Amino acid sequence: MNLMDEGIVIVYTGNGKGKTTAALGLVLRSIGYGFRVVMIQFIKGEWHYGELISSEKLKPEFEMIAAGKGFVGIIDDDHDFNEHVRAAKQALKIAKKKIESGLYDIVILDEINYAIKLKLILVEEVIDLIKNRKKTSVVLTGNYAHSQIIENADLVTEMKSIKHPYKKGIKAKKGIDF
Amino acid sequence: MNLMDEGIVIVYTGNGKGKTTAALGLVLRSIGYGFRVVMIQFIKGEWHYGELISSEKLKPEFEMIAAGKGFVGIIDDDHDFNEHVRAAKQALKIAKKKIESGLYDIVILDEINYAIKLKLILVEEVIDLIKNRKKTSVVLTGNYAHSQIIENADLVTEMKSIKHPYKKGIKAKKGIDF
Repeated sequence: MNLMDEGIVIVYTGNGKGKTTAALGLVLRSIGYGFRVVMIQFIKGEWHYGELISSEKLKPEFEMIAAGKGFVGIIDDDHDFNEHVRAAKQALKIAKKKIESGLYDIVILDEINYAIKLKLILVEEVIDLIKNRKKTSVVLTGNYAHSQIIENADLVTEMKSIKHPYKKGIKAKKGIDF
Repeated sequence: MNLMDEGIVIVYTGNGKGKTTAALGLVLRSIGYGFRVVMIQFIKGEWHYGELISSEKLKPEFEMIAAGKGFVGIIDDDHDFNEHVRAAKQALKIAKKKIESGLYDIVILDEINYAIKLKLILVEEVIDLIKNRKKTSVVLTGNYAHSQIIENADLVTEMKSIKHPYKKGIKAKKGIDF
């Protein structure tokens, strides 16, 4: 089996900056060829709106769907956890539809690794999803990529934080982080 | 000193995929805010033309300058090494001009870390460059980032290859790699 005849599976994981950013870079690169790309957010941070503005310029090749709701706190989250589960499940449903449609060259599942880690969705559901990809390449971002995801991926890069300005008390920067 | 009043220095290094790609993601994200961004290639690979096509869509906010020439082989390179030195020096000159102009929000120096490693340019010249950045953020990509570069950076991410399809004999994929 030659993997080039089907979509490949790419994982960007790790604790460093650049995971979603690299996925956005794939968008920029691939739409140059007229590829159709959709990015689905599984866990929406509050500072992801920069991409939404840019993506308008890249229509109709690039679509962005923010299905996740709010940001899931690790320990003391005041929001309703079930609401996050519902949002992630909805994102998964959309992802399934997009991948099965065969209309997209690349489907990006943003922060899906973290959604699995938080048990918002099951890893088995995601494995099923990527196994049914056919010619669509699938990109999975987010820290804590599950071992089964890595096993089923073709390309895995760990973004490792070597130095992080926000540890020094510097806030996230517009245009860089969001 | 608050780093937010001046441009920050970002480094994407490591042996994994996603360094230049993440820089392109910053382009996509930042032009959404009307930021002006320029990307200067210090070592041009043969498969980097995808970005050039896409960048047309993102004009005039995004500019792309390919000053590097060819690909530098590590051991047995038939090309003239001096020609690569000349190209990298030219890229550095352009970078200096762009950063000093104060017209850009982000200047991306693509593969500059590798150009330093290959001794095409001196690390001291690059340190001077980033020290004069004022409000311009500078992004340096390429493996083997010099310790002095890391020392002078605010944000450093190592892209570490965990799994790479090309080790299995699969060729680079259009829209993903180039």
